[in-house]
Parts: sequence; C-alpha cells; structure tokens
Amino acid sequence: MIASAPDSRVFRDIFSTTAMRRIFSDEARTQYYLDIEAALARVQARMGIIPQAACDEILRHCDVAQFDIALLKNQTERIGYPVLPVVQQLVALCKDGLGEWCHWGATTQDITDTATILQIRDALKLVEDDLRAISESLAALARAYRDTPMAGRSNLQQATPITFGYKCAVLLAGFQRHLQRLRELRPRVLVGEFGGATGTLASLGAAGLKVQEGLMAELGLGQPEIAWHTMRDRIAEVGCFLGLVTGTLGKISMDVKLMMQTEVEEVYEPFAEGRGSSSTMPQKRNPISSNYIHACVAMVRQNVAALLDAMVEDHERSTGPWEIEWIAVPEIFLLSAGALAQARFLVGGLQVDPARMRANLDLTKGLIVSEAVMMGLGPALGRQRAHDVVYDICREVIAGKGSFLDLLAGHPEIRPHMSRAQLAPFLDPANYVGLAGEMVDRVLAKEI
Amino acid sequence: MIASAPDSRVFRDIFSTTAMRRIFSDEARTQYYLDIEAALARVQARMGIIPQAACDEILRHCDVAQFDIALLKNQTERIGYPVLPVVQQLVALCKDGLGEWCHWGATTQDITDTATILQIRDALKLVEDDLRAISESLAALARAYRDTPMAGRSNLQQATPITFGYKCAVLLAGFQRHLQRLRELRPRVLVGEFGGATGTLASLGAAGLKVQEGLMAELGLGQPEIAWHTMRDRIAEVGCFLGLVTGTLGKISMDVKLMMQTEVEEVYEPFAEGRGSSSTMPQKRNPISSNYIHACVAMVRQNVAALLDAMVEDHERSTGPWEIEWIAVPEIFLLSAGALAQARFLVGGLQVDPARMRANLDLTKGLIVSEAVMMGLGPALGRQRAHDVVYDICREVIAGKGSFLDLLAGHPEIRPHMSRAQLAPFLDPANYVGLAGEMVDRVLAKEI
Amino acid sequence: MIASAPDSRVFRDIFSTTAMRRIFSDEARTQYYLDIEAALARVQARMGIIPQAACDEILRHCDVAQFDIALLKNQTERIGYPVLPVVQQLVALCKDGLGEWCHWGATTQDITDTATILQIRDALKLVEDDLRAISESLAALARAYRDTPMAGRSNLQQATPITFGYKCAVLLAGFQRHLQRLRELRPRVLVGEFGGATGTLASLGAAGLKVQEGLMAELGLGQPEIAWHTMRDRIAEVGCFLGLVTGTLGKISMDVKLMMQTEVEEVYEPFAEGRGSSSTMPQKRNPISSNYIHACVAMVRQNVAALLDAMVEDHERSTGPWEIEWIAVPEIFLLSAGALAQARFLVGGLQVDPARMRANLDLTKGLIVSEAVMMGLGPALGRQRAHDVVYDICREVIAGKGSFLDLLAGHPEIRPHMSRAQLAPFLDPANYVGLAGEMVDRVLAKEI
Amino acid sequence: MIASAPDSRVFRDIFSTTAMRRIFSDEARTQYYLDIEAALARVQARMGIIPQAACDEILRHCDVAQFDIALLKNQTERIGYPVLPVVQQLVALCKDGLGEWCHWGATTQDITDTATILQIRDALKLVEDDLRAISESLAALARAYRDTPMAGRSNLQQATPITFGYKCAVLLAGFQRHLQRLRELRPRVLVGEFGGATGTLASLGAAGLKVQEGLMAELGLGQPEIAWHTMRDRIAEVGCFLGLVTGTLGKISMDVKLMMQTEVEEVYEPFAEGRGSSSTMPQKRNPISSNYIHACVAMVRQNVAALLDAMVEDHERSTGPWEIEWIAVPEIFLLSAGALAQARFLVGGLQVDPARMRANLDLTKGLIVSEAVMMGLGPALGRQRAHDVVYDICREVIAGKGSFLDLLAGHPEIRPHMSRAQLAPFLDPANYVGLAGEMVDRVLAKEI
Repeated sequence: MIASAPDSRVFRDIFSTTAMRRIFSDEARTQYYLDIEAALARVQARMGIIPQAACDEILRHCDVAQFDIALLKNQTERIGYPVLPVVQQLVALCKDGLGEWCHWGATTQDITDTATILQIRDALKLVEDDLRAISESLAALARAYRDTPMAGRSNLQQATPITFGYKCAVLLAGFQRHLQRLRELRPRVLVGEFGGATGTLASLGAAGLKVQEGLMAELGLGQPEIAWHTMRDRIAEVGCFLGLVTGTLGKISMDVKLMMQTEVEEVYEPFAEGRGSSSTMPQKRNPISSNYIHACVAMVRQNVAALLDAMVEDHERSTGPWEIEWIAVPEIFLLSAGALAQARFLVGGLQVDPARMRANLDLTKGLIVSEAVMMGLGPALGRQRAHDVVYDICREVIAGKGSFLDLLAGHPEIRPHMSRAQLAPFLDPANYVGLAGEMVDRVLAKEI
Repeated sequence: MIASAPDSRVFRDIFSTTAMRRIFSDEARTQYYLDIEAALARVQARMGIIPQAACDEILRHCDVAQFDIALLKNQTERIGYPVLPVVQQLVALCKDGLGEWCHWGATTQDITDTATILQIRDALKLVEDDLRAISESLAALARAYRDTPMAGRSNLQQATPITFGYKCAVLLAGFQRHLQRLRELRPRVLVGEFGGATGTLASLGAAGLKVQEGLMAELGLGQPEIAWHTMRDRIAEVGCFLGLVTGTLGKISMDVKLMMQTEVEEVYEPFAEGRGSSSTMPQKRNPISSNYIHACVAMVRQNVAALLDAMVEDHERSTGPWEIEWIAVPEIFLLSAGALAQARFLVGGLQVDPARMRANLDLTKGLIVSEAVMMGLGPALGRQRAHDVVYDICREVIAGKGSFLDLLAGHPEIRPHMSRAQLAPFLDPANYVGLAGEMVDRVLAKEI
Repeated sequence: MIASAPDSRVFRDIFSTTAMRRIFSDEARTQYYLDIEAALARVQARMGIIPQAACDEILRHCDVAQFDIALLKNQTERIGYPVLPVVQQLVALCKDGLGEWCHWGATTQDITDTATILQIRDALKLVEDDLRAISESLAALARAYRDTPMAGRSNLQQATPITFGYKCAVLLAGFQRHLQRLRELRPRVLVGEFGGATGTLASLGAAGLKVQEGLMAELGLGQPEIAWHTMRDRIAEVGCFLGLVTGTLGKISMDVKLMMQTEVEEVYEPFAEGRGSSSTMPQKRNPISSNYIHACVAMVRQNVAALLDAMVEDHERSTGPWEIEWIAVPEIFLLSAGALAQARFLVGGLQVDPARMRANLDLTKGLIVSEAVMMGLGPALGRQRAHDVVYDICREVIAGKGSFLDLLAGHPEIRPHMSRAQLAPFLDPANYVGLAGEMVDRVLAKEI
Repeated sequence: MIASAPDSRVFRDIFSTTAMRRIFSDEARTQYYLDIEAALARVQARMGIIPQAACDEILRHCDVAQFDIALLKNQTERIGYPVLPVVQQLVALCKDGLGEWCHWGATTQDITDTATILQIRDALKLVEDDLRAISESLAALARAYRDTPMAGRSNLQQATPITFGYKCAVLLAGFQRHLQRLRELRPRVLVGEFGGATGTLASLGAAGLKVQEGLMAELGLGQPEIAWHTMRDRIAEVGCFLGLVTGTLGKISMDVKLMMQTEVEEVYEPFAEGRGSSSTMPQKRNPISSNYIHACVAMVRQNVAALLDAMVEDHERSTGPWEIEWIAVPEIFLLSAGALAQARFLVGGLQVDPARMRANLDLTKGLIVSEAVMMGLGPALGRQRAHDVVYDICREVIAGKGSFLDLLAGHPEIRPHMSRAQLAPFLDPANYVGLAGEMVDRVLAKEI
C-alpha cells in the first residue's frame, strides 16, 4: 500500500527512476549506515581503539540482509531516530558482546549525515549521467539542425528567424554550466560528518581527529574542518543545484509543449504506439514527457525552499529543521531523477519537422523579417524613422491592406532608397538567421 | 524498495498514517475509479443509455482485486494516464464485449478528478477527526489549568504572567476556526467532474446534464455548474486549508519544544520508555513529536505553493500543471496526517509541570510584573513617566543594584504615592494574570 | 530612491495600483494606528477610565500630518517597533501631559495587528471591486459568445469544440466561488486585537473586556474571543485567499497568451497605440498584461508560503515570524492588486476574433470531431472498437493518406452502418459543442 | 507614498540598506541602461558602424539626470518595457537626429539583462563586504572564546559541553564556504547579453560577434557563448547563493534568540539605549536584529523558489517568467542586504556572558557530561551496558533520587571499576569539551 507518487506502484517510473529510488530506499540507507559503522570499526581497530576481534565480528554483520526492518521501524518510532535501533540490532547480531565496540564515539547524526552524503555522492553520479546524455543529444541536434531555419519567438509572437540547431545550442550551453557547477560543488559537499554528540569528538579523546581522518579516507569523503551538524549549506546547495538543473528541464518541457501544439507541430515527443493517446480523442498526440517534467520541476523548486528552510537550525543539533531534510532530500532527488529521465528520453528521440518549421516561418508573409527590412532601411532613413515607417506598414499588412513587399516598395520614403528587387531578399526569412550557425559552433566547441 | 519518507518502511508512521496512506494508495485510487465507473453505469442503465446487462456485467468487475496493477503500470507509462488502462482492463474483464459500454461519455480527467474529490472527502474526514480530538485535548488542558500561572513570553523574554489554560485556549480558538473553515469549504469543494473531452458533455447529447446529475447523486457529491478541468481553485483551497491547519500545529510544536528546554522544562511530550532518548546522552528527553511536526509543516506549506502553481492551467485540459496535483495532493495529505497524528498524541498526553512554571515565573524576581507596577503607578505619575521610572529601576535590578521591591519602595518619585506594603502585591505574578480565566471560559463556551 | 518593483517610480502602476499602495503606505499605516488610539481614547473616556480632557486633547492630535516621519524612522530603528515611537510623538504633541493617557492598557502588537486588520478590510474592498468588475466582463463575454465555436484544447492539442462563451463561463464560475470565499472569510478575519502585553488585558483590570468590546464596536471590527497575537491563521487565510484569486488570474493570463500566439491569434489584449510593441520587431503585438499577471501571480504564491511560515510563532508574542507579515502582507496585496488591475483591463477590453476561431477549428480538417464520429459509431461498433477504428483512420489522415470523410466513408467496418451523407454532419465542429450553451446559462444564472 | 517594506520611509533601513537600494533604484537602473548604450556607441564608432559624431552626441546624453522619469513611467506602461522609452528619450535629447544611431542592433532584453548583470556585480560586492565583516567578527569571537565552556545543545536539550569559540567557528566555516561559492559563481554569472531580437545578432551582419566582444570588454563582463535571453540559470544561481547565505544568517538569528531567552541569557544583541525595549514591559531586552533577520530570511527563500520558477521560460524571449525577475531580483537583494546588515551589526557587537554560560552548564548537576561518564565506563562495562546503566542513573537523578556522583559511585556495576574520586573529574563539564579548541584553530587557519 503505497501512496507517494514517486514510489507508487503505478507512477513510480514516471515521476522517478528505479536507480534513484534504490539509493534512497530503506534498505540502501540502512546499508550506508552499516558501511559507515564498518569503516569506523576498521579504522578504530587499526588504531588500536577497539579490539581487532570486535572489528571482525562487526564487519561480519554489517549487511542489511541480516537486519529486521520491521523491528527497526518499531524502534525508530519509539526512539525517534533510526541509528540507535540499527546499532542495537548490530550489537545483538554480534557474538560475545563484541558488538558493543561498534559506533564507538559516534553520534546518531554522524552516521545519518555521512550516509546522506554517500547517498548524494551516488545520486549525483546518476544526475551527471543524465546531464551528459542530454547534452550529447542536444549537441547532436544542434549539429544536425545547425542551419535549419525556424521562427524565433518572443512573447509567443514570431519575432525573427533562428535555426533549430541554435535553439538546441542555447539549451546545451546551460547544461555545460550545470556540469561545471557539479564539478565545483562536489569537493565542497562530499564531506563526511563525525564529531560525536555536539561535534567536539569529546568521547574519543585526543585520537578523535585521527579517527575522523581515517574514517573519511575509508569512505572516500572529504574531512570536515569542524562539525556541520547544524550548518546545512552543503545539503541545501545540492538542492539548489537540482533546482537549477530542473529549471532548465522545465524550459525544455515548455518549448516542446508549445512546438507540439496542433497549430505549430514543429517537433514531437518520441513516438511509441499509444503514447500520449486519449481515451476519447484519437487524433491527439499529447506531450506526455513534457507534462511530467513540468510537474516534477514545479515540486522540485518548492523542495529547494524547504531545504533552505532546513538551514535555520538551532544550536549544535537541531529540533525539527533537520527532519525536513529526511523528507525533502529523497523527494528532490527522486523527482529530479524523474524529470531527468523524461527529458533524456524526450531529447534523445525528439522528432523534428523542418518542413513545418519553414511553413510556419512563412505564416506572416515576411513580417517576421520586418526587422531585417528596418535595419536595411536604417542607414537611409535613420533607425527610429525606419522603425516607425516599417511599423506602420506592418500594421497595414496585418489589416489586410496589401502584401508586405508591395507596401514597402510603394512607400514614398522607401522608394527613393530601395527598389522592389533590392527589398525582396530582405523578405526571405532564411536569409536572416544572423550568426546562429557560428554560435552553435562556439557552443559545440566547448568541452562538455 | 521504497524511498519516499511518508511511505518508507521505517518512517511511514512517523511522517504519515496508515489510514491516510490507504486513501491515497494505488489500490484505493483505482477502486475509486471503479466506483465511479460503476455509478456511471448504474445511472446510464437506469436512463436507458446503456443496456442493463452491460451495467450488470460492469458492476461485477468494478473491483480492484480483479485488476493487474503491474499491467496498469506498464499501460500508464505508455499512454501517460491511468484511466484508459483501467478502462481497457475493465473491458477485457467483461464478457461478451459488454464492457464496451463502460466509461460512456466520460473522459480520463472526469474519472481522475472525481476520484480525487472522493479521496479528499474521505481524507477530510480523517482530518476532522484529528482536529476534534486535538480540540478536546486542548479544551481539557484549558479547563484543568485555567488558573495555573506561568510566564507569558514575548520575543522569548518573560513578559507578563498568563495561565497555562489560557495558552491552551488560544490554540483551541484556532482549531475552532479551522473546523469552521472545514464546514464552509466542503460544499464548495466536494463537487464531482463529468463533462467529457472538453467539458461540454458533447458525447452524451441532450442527456448529458441528466447523467451528470444522476452520477453526482449516486456518489453523494455536488453537481458542478460547469466543467472545472482547468479551474483548480477547489483543489488548491483544500491545500490552503491544510496549510492553515498545519501552521497551527507548527505553533504548538514550537511552544512545546521551547517549554521542554533544559532551562525551562515546563511541559514534556508524553513519556514512553526510550522515547526521545539519545544514543550517547542518557540525560536527554528529546521533543520527538514536535520535531516531526515541524518538518511535516515545513513541507506542507511549500506544497501549498505548488498547488497554487498548479492553478495556472492552460485551455480546457492542461499540459503539466495538472500533474503537479498528482504528486502534491497525496503528499500534502500524507504529511498533514503525520503532523496531525503527532500533534494528537502530543497534546493528548502532554505532561505539565505547574511547579516549574511557578519557579520560572519567579526567575526575574518580580521584574515580570513590572508592567503591573507601571500600571499601578500610572494614575499617580502618568503612564509615560511611570514607564520611564520603572524601566530605569528594572535596569538597576538587572545590573544587580538591589531587589525590585527595595528599589521601588525607595524611589523618590514613587515613595510619596505608594508604600512598600502597597507595592508588594503588585510583585506577585499570580496576581497579574488579568482576564486569562474569563477568556478561557469564553473559548470553552464556543461549540467545537 | 525606490527599488521595490511595486513602488518603483517606473513600474508601480504595472505591478500594483495607487489605491492599494495608499492603504499600505507609511502615512496610512500610521494614520490607522492613530485612528485606533483615538477610538481607544473615546471608549476609555466614555467609561471613565481616562479623563475626557485627555481624550479631547488626544483626538486633536491623532492626525498623521502632525507627525514627523523621519523621527518615527529613527525611533523605530532604535526600538524595533513603530508603535511606541508614534505614541511618544503623540504624547509630546499633547499639552499638559494629557497624552500620557493615550495607549492606555494597549501593547504594541494590539495597535499593529488591529491596524493590519483595518488595512485588510479596506484592501479587500478593492479586491472585491476588481473581482466584481472582472466577473461582469466575463459574464458579458460569456453571453456575447455563448454560441461562438472554437477549438477546445487539451494538452495544447485541439480536442473537441467548445464555444468562447463557455470558456469565459468556466472562468466566471471560479470568480463566483472567490466572491463566496470572500463573504465567508470576512467575519472570521475582520476581528481586532486588544489584549495588552500577553493578551490577558491584565493592565486594565476587570474593565478589560468592556474596553475591548467598545473599541471593536468603534472600529466596526469583530471582538476576539481571546488574543491572537501568535495565532496567525486569520492573516494567513487572507494570503491563501489572494493566492487562490491570483491563481485564477494566472489561468486567464496563460490562456490569453496562448490565444495571442502568431499561430493562433484568436484573441488580443486591448489595443492601445504602441502597447506591446517591440523596439525592433514592428509586426509584434505582445501580451503585456498577461506577462505582468504571470509574474505577479508567481510572486504571490510564494508569499502565501511565507505567510504560512509566519504562523509558526513562539509563545505569546513571537520572535521573528511576526515580522515576516510586515513584509509579506503589503507585498501580497500590492502584487495581487497589480494582477487584478491588469486582468480587469485585459478582460474588460479583450478583442475576440470569431472568424479566426472558426478557421483554427477547421485546421485539422475534421479530426477535432473524431470523438463525435467515434461516439456516433459506438452503438454500432462498440465504444472500444469504434475508438480503435477511428484512431487508426486519424493516424492515416495525419499521415496524408486521404481526407477524414473519405477514409471514414470507405472503411469496411463503418460502411455497413453509416453512409457518407450520414457521416458528414458529424464532421462539422460547430455541430459538436455539446451543452456548452446550457452550461453558460447555468453559470450566468448564479448571482455574482 | 511608499508601501513596500524594503523601501518604506519607516522600515527601509531595517529590512534593507541604502547602498543596496541605490543599486536597484529606478535612477541607477536607468543609468546602467545608459552606460550600456554609451559603451555600445563607443564600440560601434570605433568599428566604424556608427558615425563618431553620433557616438559623441550620444555619450553627451547618457546621463540619467537628463531624463524625465515621469515620462519614462508613462511610456513604459504603454509599451510594456522601459528600454524603448529610454531610447526614445535619448534620441530626442540628441541633436541632428544623431541619436538614431544609438541602440544599434540591440534588443530591449539585451540592455535589460546586461544592466541586471551590472547590478548583480555591484550588489555582490556589497554582499562580499558583509560576508567578510561577519567572518572577521566571528573569527574574533572564535579566537577570544576558544576555551570558554558552555552547554552544547541538541534538540534544545543540554547535550555535552562545547566552547563558545567552537560555536562561532562552526558558523565561520560556513561563511568561508559562502565566499568560496561567490568566487566560483562570479565568472559564470557576470556575463553580458547582446544578441538582438532572438539572440542571433542578425541585425548586425558579420560584425555582430566583434561588437559583442567589444561591448563586454568595455563593460568588464564576460562574453556569452550564445544568447541566454531564456536560459536563466545564471540569475537563479545568484538567487540560490543568497538563499544559502541568508540560510546561515537565519541559523545565527535562531541561536542568538535562544541564547537571549530570559531563562538562558548567555549572549545579548549589542546594547543601545532603548533598543529592544517594550512599551509596557520595561524589564525586556528583545532580540531585535535577530527578529528582522528571521523575517528577511523567510522571504528570501521564497524568492529563490520564484527565481527558479522564472527559469521555465518559453522560446527565445519569454512571456511572463522574465518579469518575475523584475520583482524578485531587487527584492532578494534588498532583503538579503537587510539580513546581512543586521547580522553584521549583531555579530560585530555581540555581548557574551561566560559566567552565565558556566552557570547554565552546571544546571543539570553533571548530567550534561553523562556521556563522558558513559564513555569512561565503556571499556569496563561495554558501550551498550555503560549506556544503559548511566541512562537509568540519569533518570533517577532527574526523579530526585540523589546526586549524579552519589548514584554513580554507589552503583554495584560501577563500583568495582571506578572510585568516587576517579569518577569526579568526569563530572566537570569544563573537562569535556573534546577537541573544540583544535577545531577552532583548524577553521581559523583557513584563509577567508
């Protein structure tokens, strides 16, 4: 009986992915705890803080398969946190009381926070995978359609022509920045936690920092300069990163939805039999992935605010704000994974219709390149005057008083400067894509 | 393998409740669909729109136990929405092609929206239950501690005395308003949806409104005046209501956390062996329920923003915003249920320490009733002058220059107007709880 | 030097309105304080608590024009709250120390909260005005275009026909609900605050509740059953209401933007010379009001979350959360006013192009009424079979293999049941608007 | 008549700062536009694209003092964007029609976006200033109180001792990370925009990229690889950064508020005559700056969500989402500046009471170091057994059954292993601050 959308038996692979759910599952989280307990035992045995025999016995049982999750649930409800119950089961699993040596000098939050960081490390690998795959698909689209003209749109109005490759390269540049952000945040964020009750390592005496150093080396994490039990900028930063990434996915979703409109039909989501069909309207082809992306993204940004809220923690270990992360960190990764997977599928199989792009470009019968005309007339009439003259002619065309070329060629201020034949090339939208191609090349030249 | 906190095998009864999860579970949601399809078939058979035999056969199979959820998942991913896959299975379950008569004239969103409203109806019953239980506990506390003095606090500073019953009555008044809100929103919100593809009931011809009326009567829902496929104020209003309710829970959690501080210790969460204990600090008694409430509430308010976002829908059936609700509606109810259950437990078993309240009241050695003194001196010295004089004496007391009573009694501006004996009663905090008791009575007199 | 958008010398009448800014201006807020102090003096003089001469002198100076705002600023920064500085100036303005009798028994937050409620009362009047004006415009549009067919759209795909009047009536029904919500919340929200330091009215002795009652009667506000200094559901509820209202405005904005697209062009924002023009693209006509509405609405919903956050207050007078309201309450009203004003302008002067609606309706060459065909064939073929057959034919039409009518008429499963002549009327979209007109009438029949 | 809190005549220096308001004021924004127009003219004159005389004349008038802001307001309302109205005034100011050469090849959003980046550049300088000043104050506190013991608190319960210097160093480490983030984001974010209508530089022909390069060099900004008119990750990233920074400020505010409680009184906000005083409670000293920080931070995080929302832009120039930034970017900087200024003041003048810290540390009569005892007994009894024994004794102490030392010394399991004299040092909290000092040193050793 499951009710949350990202875990729903029906919706789970729509709003999330199996790989991401696995990382944040109860079993995986508990195993991360045990991996940390095992690493701690290894380090402390090596340093002579706990007996080697205790370490060996502890390692033998640091396996979630040996644990009773139902018991863990009951104990967690009783105690309020899941780490002590795990430790209690681990102690019970170990023979000869050797388990008593586990968790030596650690506090609940040390284990929980470090496990969260290990989850984040693994989850960010999945995110990076998707970012790279989407970037490669966008790069391929940018290359393939570098010179395919289409209407550029501003305020949902046709503005001046662009190419479809240019449109894709604009997106690609964003993903390049996201990958750069990811590179920068990793060393800052992938730092473990080990400080004991209030972070001072008091229970381990002078050896504390050595144990901490060894533990982080074992886990492949950075060593913290000081405890961060209640300084949650690292966690919130990861949330912000996902907010930025999914913001870009939201933009892709928006554009695809708009281009799939019955009245536009320039691109389509990948076709699969029945996909996006309606129970009652057989002619429709719905932008399914775009819908799901839109929804996930809307939730992710609210989770970012929640994670920023969770930063307002009290004293050395917080009273409530921390638990916001317990809900929001899994959720933001699950939903981001859903949005990324949908976007990867969408971009990877996007169907593009250059002919329809060209047809739409001709819809305004040249008005879309009124700027070209205006700029062409600028040197002769002055920019502002050219603007005003062309603006008036455009309104006449819209009002049905003649074709753009006719009205331009016949205008008393234009006629002296430019003939009909000189004006005509300005009116072909394909001639007015500017440096779109060069810009595509600039973006493609950057390493992803 | 479950990753969302409200469904987690470990955390699910911390951040949510079984009863609420059941309502939003895949099985229940699908059954709600089938209940609606069954009601539709009954109405349409009665009106002669579909054959009675078809209705009978359909009713025989409107039982989620007959459905293949794994298949439903696959089809939902393929098509994008779960209703058509359910209908297809229903058709397949029915003999002799009689299933073809199901879902007659309905569109996917008719079924989904009406199911959501049925979920909301049942979920609001749970919410009301909790609101009533919390209200009763608060009423009992307000009654029992009507005259138990404690420090009132402003800006986390002791201000003037109140009674603990007064503190509870302030909260109770809020819950009375929440119950009033619930009464008002139900008739507006508990309205079904049945309009076909774009809401015009086109596929049912002239009979459409009659079918709609009959369907809503069958389901016990209000009949919509017009389709609301893309007018989501009803759903968002429910979210706002939960935001308001949990906001009050957040306030309770905040006060309990603060009163449980080592330095305050005026109330405690209900005691249970081991509850709130720490793995390393045996002396602690953590405010566990308060923590969970704080976290749930922080998530709920961001879900409210998400549901308001979902109102910005396009045309007759939206492209993405609707799916925000698929995630946010279950989540906001699950987390609200978690917060309500924790609050119900907390308020129902709250441990109150009147002796410690009194001890804290005496901490400032009378300064807490400086206002009483100031008001007492007002008629003689003028309000502002009395304020200034008392303010200065307070600072002297704080600086350790003498007791409040001594300094007051010895002050040259006060001495002429009031003797030490006259001043003394002003300095007993228990004498300065004002109309706290009367206000408790006023609140208790209101029907819940 | 102003930097906030709603007050900007350039943008203020875009993102807000003069009338709303006036209510929340420093001058007005201070005057509301003074109105309350004046009312309090009147009540207390009448009850013999303060001398009539003091009351008279106080009333003489309860006029913001006599106050030094720069001094108020300095004192507010020093003290942290603006009420005491106002009281100090008032005392100073009054002759013979009579001012000392002002503010008798009140606390800072009594005055501030009651002033906020007075602001809300006046602001809600403006909101109601706009809601009524928008409703009337929508009603006029619904009436005028009751039977004007256009494409209904689902997932941004043409779905089945509707009428433009129906589209407007769907919106109108939402506004009717908003007005109903407003009626319900007013008596609950328009309640003053007067309780003294911790709300117990301690400083006024037994007369406290009588003073409170008299004060609220003077101000035309409800009397609180108990203090609500830290129970902020009333304020947050107003925020939620504005969130719901602007959510609907966001939907209007979305639809207008989409209908103004170059490829759609079914409606236009009211024309004004130069409005929505581009510096470089003279052919464009940008959806300016829709843009502004979109932006205001996005901000408003996050302000709702902020106001829910502000509910998590501590003890009897809060430490920080209250101040969230100082920022968010003005902002949410200012931006809601901006969105309402833009929507009122937009809806009031909307340009509608029925011819283009009809042209777009014919874009799919009958596919838009495939449902009509499907439903028409249902009795003969069975709903599911009819769906599958029509679905396949639609895909053939889309693939350019023939006209819809030809392919239908020639299909071996259809031919036996329906002739070309019988099929043809199903293909006229204007014949398939269902009960759109009846639904318009139902909505128009409701009182606004 | 101003209504927004950050610009209010009363509150503006509470919720914001003059320096920050100046950057986002109408005058400054317009001047940034003009600076860009001037730079563009210089570059284009140098490249021979526009006449030198035109450049000279344009430069002569690129001064906001020559502009009519009221006219600008009217024109902006008419057109919808402020850039064209500025250009029109500039043209009008220039003699001989030379102004027609200004804005050559630019589009409205080029100027607006680049101005926004210039504002962000200047605003981030102010932010950095505050971050450095706060860091220095925290470093000084960490150094001064490196070894001053106080209670560490977890779940608002006294947990184990820390030092006040350690508490400050934890915060300082967060600010070091914020400064690192700032260094990383600057080169990515401080990139101008110049692409013309849809970003392709079409109106400038082949010279476009050269003009763009020259313009960015003039302005000291990075050159974009491609247009980012609708890829807003740069702007949203700045918002996220401010969200993270203010999140840490929120944590400071929370701790100070809690430590200022009447029952705790370990630190105080800087004293100023009357600051934080109440109109009715002269004994109070309210945490004024902490309150304001709390409120600003709560708003900032919602603005982050709004800026992430603004990323969901359509096509080449968006329809509404962009305008979210017009409201949110000034607001998030204004409120962040307010929070930073309050925090700078607060941290810079914080009053610390080591004696009270010590007194609070002794409140639990040794229970606070129960962990020390438990760890000390661990080698003899086993960690879990030691925990259970000490846990039980703690509960006995709490129940008033004897002193901690007495009960420990008399316990049958402890007696064989440790004498009363051996136990006593474990019970002095000052002996149990662990490596707090070393950690302070580690943080102080890092370059800010």
